[in-house]
Amino acid sequence: MLPQVTTTVSATRQALQTFRAAGRSIGLAPTMGALHAGHVALFKQAKRENDIAVASIFVNPTQFGPGEDFHRYPRPLDADLALCESAGVDLVVHPDVAEIYPAGFETFVEVQDLQKPLCGLSRPIHFRGVATVVLKLLNIVQPDRAYFGQKDAQQVRIIEQMVRDLDVPTQIVISPIVREADGLAMSSRNRYLAPEERRHASVLFRSLEKIREEVERGERQAEKLIAAARHTIQSTPGALIDYVDIVDWRTLRPIDVLAGQVLVAEAVRFGTTRLIDNWRVDL
Amino acid sequence: MLPQVTTTVSATRQALQTFRAAGRSIGLAPTMGALHAGHVALFKQAKRENDIAVASIFVNPTQFGPGEDFHRYPRPLDADLALCESAGVDLVVHPDVAEIYPAGFETFVEVQDLQKPLCGLSRPIHFRGVATVVLKLLNIVQPDRAYFGQKDAQQVRIIEQMVRDLDVPTQIVISPIVREADGLAMSSRNRYLAPEERRHASVLFRSLEKIREEVERGERQAEKLIAAARHTIQSTPGALIDYVDIVDWRTLRPIDVLAGQVLVAEAVRFGTTRLIDNWRVDL
Repeated sequence: MLPQVTTTVSATRQALQTFRAAGRSIGLAPTMGALHAGHVALFKQAKRENDIAVASIFVNPTQFGPGEDFHRYPRPLDADLALCESAGVDLVVHPDVAEIYPAGFETFVEVQDLQKPLCGLSRPIHFRGVATVVLKLLNIVQPDRAYFGQKDAQQVRIIEQMVRDLDVPTQIVISPIVREADGLAMSSRNRYLAPEERRHASVLFRSLEKIREEVERGERQAEKLIAAARHTIQSTPGALIDYVDIVDWRTLRPIDVLAGQVLVAEAVRFGTTRLIDNWRVDL
Repeated sequence: MLPQVTTTVSATRQALQTFRAAGRSIGLAPTMGALHAGHVALFKQAKRENDIAVASIFVNPTQFGPGEDFHRYPRPLDADLALCESAGVDLVVHPDVAEIYPAGFETFVEVQDLQKPLCGLSRPIHFRGVATVVLKLLNIVQPDRAYFGQKDAQQVRIIEQMVRDLDVPTQIVISPIVREADGLAMSSRNRYLAPEERRHASVLFRSLEKIREEVERGERQAEKLIAAARHTIQSTPGALIDYVDIVDWRTLRPIDVLAGQVLVAEAVRFGTTRLIDNWRVDL
């Protein structure tokens, strides 16, 4: 049976009210749809760790800049609902833009420092939109736990910080990156890739693996590790580096010498498609 | 018996957990302490309309600009707790600054347009601080209803908008302005006034009353009404006008002709003390 679908805030609250009153726990996995195995892993974990698993499917306009892919972002709803069903999702929240951003909407949340580096440099309003819509979804569903993929590392760090700073009564759970056979991180945007781009796109993973191997051999100089990864990417046809950075996981600020909680993060363009990947390690 | 006092987020949640699990309703009145009859009215209304009345007392540093009165803001805790007791408050949340803004705090909420006019002109970071701390308090206490005084009109409008925009599951209740015998709106800052300033401070109310009388006689031209009020204030010794504005209640933008939901708002300085007052009317 397909999961129940709600399209309004009030219907969502009503659908969850009886579960909540009965003391049953609720897990939420917010998504933009165009679901893949990475999302399915989130749904299954939400279902495993809670009585009720809720997925939201909402392509959030406020996190897309002008000229980005908001309008062409894939919206294969029937396939998405089938995937939700197969993963054991109980409720799918699927509002339209006017329900989430009614006329006169003007309130935004900003995690001021964490939103600036990495993807924030080329997408200046992106994380303000992400933080705002995630806070709204947490307020609408009021889950005990909310699930996000480590693939969107900066997003995960920002949501963790927002939830802590604003005392949101939801536990944030981070799930590992799910990858294709050649190592390419699962992403809804992978379907934008032309066949040849797709063949070369595993270079993000391969360059991160190279860094991992060097770190395991004892290398701790960020400059050397970044140079090696950049070389690997630059020698790949069609790959254009947006950034390759090594940062402190807590602050997302660059570090010279790898120590403590470290994030190695990359963004690479193939044509008009921008892919991200990362490796997080505790040294 | 004095009400229970909690000073941490976790102790507050724990204190309320049993009430919430038993389905009892919770009303919150957020304050900065230095309580007066206006606050007491909020507490009594919270107690009347809910099973549990919670007051928070927190002088919020992020809503004070540099050079404002954060450090000298009165903090008469014993008298405040006695007033809470007399008003039937069940729980007082009284955290310190490090509990609300721990090291590394960096998340702020902004109601972008409503925060700019009126008091926002002379206090540019004020309402960002107000919105952020109120959202935190709502998340910490998770009340069914939260109570605010109409005296802080722009604050009330901003909180209403924030709660609507972010889908915060709390009902915002606005209580009427409580006044001294001569009409001066109750305010914690009234105690800053020297005796002579205090005598003249009722000019805010008197000028608003003049506007009300003119409106009741049929006057609808904002310019004329503002001029009359400004004249009344300017002829009062020691009174320095910050603003006298007539705005649309929903947008807080100036209107030329009074119609619909109207807010007449004033800010006047006496020495270093800045007082506000307002009259809200539906025409």
